Amino acid sequence: MTDSPKTALIDAIRPEIKALPESGIVEVVNYARLKKDLVPLWVGEGDKPTPAFIADAAMAALKRGETFYTYQRGIPPLRQALADYLSRSYAAKIDPERVFVTVGGMSAIKETMQMLLNPGDEIVVPSPCWPNVAAAAEIMGGVVRPVMLTFGNRGWTLDIEKVMAACGPKTKIIFVNSPGNPTGYMMSRAEQKALLEFARKRGLWIVADEVYGRLVYDRKAAPSFLEIADPDERVVVVNTFSKNWAMTGWRMGWVVASKQLGQVYENLVQYNTSGVPTFLQHGAVAALNDGDAFLAEQVARCAKGRDMVTETFSRLPRVRYAPPDGAFYAFFSVDGEDDARALAFKLVDRANVGLAPGTAFGPGAPNFMRLCFACSLDRLGEGLARLEKALK
Amino acid sequence: MTDSPKTALIDAIRPEIKALPESGIVEVVNYARLKKDLVPLWVGEGDKPTPAFIADAAMAALKRGETFYTYQRGIPPLRQALADYLSRSYAAKIDPERVFVTVGGMSAIKETMQMLLNPGDEIVVPSPCWPNVAAAAEIMGGVVRPVMLTFGNRGWTLDIEKVMAACGPKTKIIFVNSPGNPTGYMMSRAEQKALLEFARKRGLWIVADEVYGRLVYDRKAAPSFLEIADPDERVVVVNTFSKNWAMTGWRMGWVVASKQLGQVYENLVQYNTSGVPTFLQHGAVAALNDGDAFLAEQVARCAKGRDMVTETFSRLPRVRYAPPDGAFYAFFSVDGEDDARALAFKLVDRANVGLAPGTAFGPGAPNFMRLCFACSLDRLGEGLARLEKALK
Repeated sequence: MTDSPKTALIDAIRPEIKALPESGIVEVVNYARLKKDLVPLWVGEGDKPTPAFIADAAMAALKRGETFYTYQRGIPPLRQALADYLSRSYAAKIDPERVFVTVGGMSAIKETMQMLLNPGDEIVVPSPCWPNVAAAAEIMGGVVRPVMLTFGNRGWTLDIEKVMAACGPKTKIIFVNSPGNPTGYMMSRAEQKALLEFARKRGLWIVADEVYGRLVYDRKAAPSFLEIADPDERVVVVNTFSKNWAMTGWRMGWVVASKQLGQVYENLVQYNTSGVPTFLQHGAVAALNDGDAFLAEQVARCAKGRDMVTETFSRLPRVRYAPPDGAFYAFFSVDGEDDARALAFKLVDRANVGLAPGTAFGPGAPNFMRLCFACSLDRLGEGLARLEKALK
Repeated sequence: MTDSPKTALIDAIRPEIKALPESGIVEVVNYARLKKDLVPLWVGEGDKPTPAFIADAAMAALKRGETFYTYQRGIPPLRQALADYLSRSYAAKIDPERVFVTVGGMSAIKETMQMLLNPGDEIVVPSPCWPNVAAAAEIMGGVVRPVMLTFGNRGWTLDIEKVMAACGPKTKIIFVNSPGNPTGYMMSRAEQKALLEFARKRGLWIVADEVYGRLVYDRKAAPSFLEIADPDERVVVVNTFSKNWAMTGWRMGWVVASKQLGQVYENLVQYNTSGVPTFLQHGAVAALNDGDAFLAEQVARCAKGRDMVTETFSRLPRVRYAPPDGAFYAFFSVDGEDDARALAFKLVDRANVGLAPGTAFGPGAPNFMRLCFACSLDRLGEGLARLEKALK
């Protein structure tokens, strides 16, 4: 039965959609909108625009008139460049036929949820986590089972036994984000192998968000499921151009999965977004083929940023923090501050610094704050100086 | 229960997703991939790239470094330009707060289906229709109830009494595509009013795809639900930049709905695509603010193309066709040819012309062919000459 035409418009939509949360980060951004000279460290991006060699390649394609409907799996040169990039970044040989280009990592996750989740199916998600993962599952009627990471002397850790224990008869997916946003947690090779073995036994899918896989500080790349999974099993690895090559605003990402799912992803891309503009894809080809040096600079700058945070926080006895293994966030708590949301507003008012509250990342860290250290060291230094005064 | 790990990968995904059809157009395109000098009239786009004044505006924004995360409802100047464009195109004053920018018309439809369709909810879709509408509904577990248009001496017509009769207790949405793809059917103002009145009484939503609203041949614009619906009722109008301004490859569209749904669309954009690249949005601003003349040229060329089709077909007694009121397709049948799919392959082989078979557009036209006449008149003339020989 349809409801009465007198029902309020918002009550006439699906309850799952009405219940979707507004971003807990955007809430703070909106609160601070009129503040002058605020140092914004809340969003997961740096302050440098996309480098010129990438923009130039996109503009050249646009000038050539590459403005027509496109390949739904990605243009062949981009799929080849992705396979080459992945094969030289990881101990794995990736077939370009396994690579599907998407509208950002977001769409890669969304389409994978569409592929796998019937209403009522469960997805196990280590938490805190980027909130869009849970939302993408919930839009499909999926049920999120969070498993808490914990913070201790070794920083943020995850007990994978708890992940396995959370998998019940309705579980369809184990979601793994390593290195993790917001925590910086990195899953070891041994843990990945154990989890994959468990998933195989139970017929579960692993969806691995490896967006920060190259943003690591003690090695070339984080352990990847690409290196241990068979090409044709229930493992989907999602990724994005956003972070490595300062392309957050380009909305380009990719999936690596079995080539048996090629037609499925082609259809899902067709019926969700109908693909990524061809001329933007040429920019992405340049990022992959000519962007290793830029990526190395980004990692080096983030490493310096991480050191600056560590040094500043070492002088602040109320701050509880450990340097993350990967990604570009400091995720820390402040003794005596139990409400991250309130603290975020307070830091806007008193320190003129924008941080993201842990409450924006699902359960597990109601008193933690996320600081993105991917920006220029000048901006970061100013932000840290203000925080130091406010949190002394 | 999860299924056994021995299950074939494709059988481990949702049955609704496995059942999604491959595009019936792409099937023909793939068949013809190695043919030389084929005249392609199958896809819904012309052969001119996006005009320079639009590309230049996007490139200027890219050069300015507008490559960061963006507004999820669209950048304010684009929402304003859309409101201005709609207000001058239609007898309606559109508030920019009612306009939401999306990744193409496709994503506008997809997100609206997510907002409205619980599994098992029905959507009434006049058919034949662009197949992506049904697919977007089916991904959400929605059930499509097609209502057939019929072809007669007045061309393609739709009996809106049949549309109303198809609405049952599980119906949530009536989908209206006018002018229609592939038929060119245009719904009259009186019919729109009657359908809206019916939808109001029954608490149904109308989702109006008005992508071809300005591609009409006897007036400025097709009748629009924007002109008769209240701002805050259950009417969603979707549209795209693709056709009017030769921007198919840009993947940009928009929704007009109640501003009460602003946060809902903001969330859906966030959790599906996270928005449209800012620098592309600046191209779209140029399209709207400086593109009226270009649009007028497009319509004039399409009108000539339509006349060329009509003239050619008048010499072909086997062809059954009436000039469409809107959109840029001839949708015709050929006496003695009952299988459009087979005919599409045959025309590739014998005439070296690419057409889209009616079978690609859901039920209702198994023996019809779609020819897009939006291309240059030279290309169209060559295609028509070849068809004339083959269909004599």
